[in-house]
Amino acid sequence: MDRIVIIGLGLIGTSLGLAIRQSMGKDVEVVGTDLETSHIATAKKMGAIDRDERNIPAAVQGADIVILATPILAMRDLMEFMVPYMSEGTVVTDVGSTKKEVVAWGEELLPAGVSFVGGHPMAGKETSGPKDADAAMLKGAVYAICPAPSATEEATKSIVAIAQAIGAKPYFMDPVEHDSYIAAVSHLPFLLSVSLINTTTKSAGWREMSRLASSGFRDISRLAAGDPVMHRDVAVTNRDAIVHWLDEFIKNLHSLRNLVKDDQEGLEKALVDAWEGRARWLINRDSEEPMIGEGVNASDQFMGMILGDTVASKFREMGDKGKEDPTRYRKS
Amino acid sequence: MDRIVIIGLGLIGTSLGLAIRQSMGKDVEVVGTDLETSHIATAKKMGAIDRDERNIPAAVQGADIVILATPILAMRDLMEFMVPYMSEGTVVTDVGSTKKEVVAWGEELLPAGVSFVGGHPMAGKETSGPKDADAAMLKGAVYAICPAPSATEEATKSIVAIAQAIGAKPYFMDPVEHDSYIAAVSHLPFLLSVSLINTTTKSAGWREMSRLASSGFRDISRLAAGDPVMHRDVAVTNRDAIVHWLDEFIKNLHSLRNLVKDDQEGLEKALVDAWEGRARWLINRDSEEPMIGEGVNASDQFMGMILGDTVASKFREMGDKGKEDPTRYRKS
Repeated sequence: MDRIVIIGLGLIGTSLGLAIRQSMGKDVEVVGTDLETSHIATAKKMGAIDRDERNIPAAVQGADIVILATPILAMRDLMEFMVPYMSEGTVVTDVGSTKKEVVAWGEELLPAGVSFVGGHPMAGKETSGPKDADAAMLKGAVYAICPAPSATEEATKSIVAIAQAIGAKPYFMDPVEHDSYIAAVSHLPFLLSVSLINTTTKSAGWREMSRLASSGFRDISRLAAGDPVMHRDVAVTNRDAIVHWLDEFIKNLHSLRNLVKDDQEGLEKALVDAWEGRARWLINRDSEEPMIGEGVNASDQFMGMILGDTVASKFREMGDKGKEDPTRYRKS
Repeated sequence: MDRIVIIGLGLIGTSLGLAIRQSMGKDVEVVGTDLETSHIATAKKMGAIDRDERNIPAAVQGADIVILATPILAMRDLMEFMVPYMSEGTVVTDVGSTKKEVVAWGEELLPAGVSFVGGHPMAGKETSGPKDADAAMLKGAVYAICPAPSATEEATKSIVAIAQAIGAKPYFMDPVEHDSYIAAVSHLPFLLSVSLINTTTKSAGWREMSRLASSGFRDISRLAAGDPVMHRDVAVTNRDAIVHWLDEFIKNLHSLRNLVKDDQEGLEKALVDAWEGRARWLINRDSEEPMIGEGVNASDQFMGMILGDTVASKFREMGDKGKEDPTRYRKS
């Protein structure tokens, strides 16, 4: 029987356990561990693991696949610690939100005969810990796969097979590319959320102001509720890309500030651009077929057909400068 | 029978109609109109209005309350247009997201005997139009009330009565204060959303990057899907406050950028601060009783009791610098 070991039974580790046990059934034994005893108990109760094994050497010896699902900096220590106990042919993977450093550690630290294939399922919630784990979260999620240079083809295939079994979409990426892209679409949004909270809650008027904070504030600040340790590890293993995207964002926001200040036409264009950009993203995302390592296959023409009229009408509304013609109401 | 006229049957206008009809029953007749014939039809079908009256003069003549629920710049034109047809004792209110200019227009343009009482229910979605209208959205929502200087006490009471009837929490505010606060907790988050979309979707890597965009990106970009006309009007009637908060935010984000770059300890503090700030906001919000015009009555001691341990444990985790002690796993 195949043995899959999950180290770290937080939100993602436990969700993976649930998804693997549901989809791969009796062919595999899922063994799990965590430094928090309560996490192990919860994961077991939820049915995310077949059994727990707190003794890491015993857990990884002879394992087919070891999944690291801890905060990123802990993965390095775990890899170093596991080395003497690893068996030829074991495949190690992870689920961390940055890939360049993790893949480099896997390549450098793990012994010959053990392949490292980095992974990153694009799924998450702002909560952490196993209690909100959910196999459905991984269904349809893009699953980035970054094999270390010396990983065997077979090792890579085994991780792709897991991703496919749980209903995710495996997507091959270069680790550097992955980290740059994910900085823009995940780490940047998180830091905006952090900065929004810190800008507002530390201001003099916060007590009064907080009463007016509603669903918009709640959504934009949601990510700031994420686990600080996890996000600290993400930031320190992806510094350059994050700083690059923060700089790009600040430049863009400063331009927007100037448009608000005294360029109504420019502001209108920026608002319509954003409106259209988000609509395109959603249409594109929903029309995508699962694919491995191919480019994005979006049909711009198709999107144009759907979006064209709506965007045109937004521009027309803008042209009215918000001036409704009240005489139109008179035609009763 | 009392007549309440709603001009503008978008998301908020239609939600108000639904809430008023459900809560105030047969005592009032709700009359609605919109420039879009399809909006009128939808609002009618949903039961948000008793009848439609496209002829504004006929609608407002003898009305008890007129609710302006159009984009903000259109409100000014509507007020000017309505003047000759208004009856003594009618109360005009609005639901716009900025109050200083709207209240000034109400004070300046409306005839003697007609009171203007500005209003702003803190509820919304990123969609617009009547089809997503929902009376429940207003339940429990803070409802800012900003009477114009010459509004009668009776006029103000009638708007407070509506807010209370639909289950919202009336909250008296100075219009300038309102606009400054709402710039921080609503207009700023919207512009962050716009800027995130424009920064990412216009970048060279967007096609690849967009595949990795997941729930975090979706939530932070959600507000950018809001109606551009509505938001343009908000921006041009609240320029100074928005520019002020954008400047504050950019300053904070730039500091955060520097922490990511080379101050891990400072970064940890910023992440824990944000984590704590958001948790405090949620606890505070959920513990608040409805109140009219009082200060926020948060019990810091109570929050300390709830948050104390969790925050302390976050700091302790940080102290470990993400270094798990793998030898702990050995104690099986």
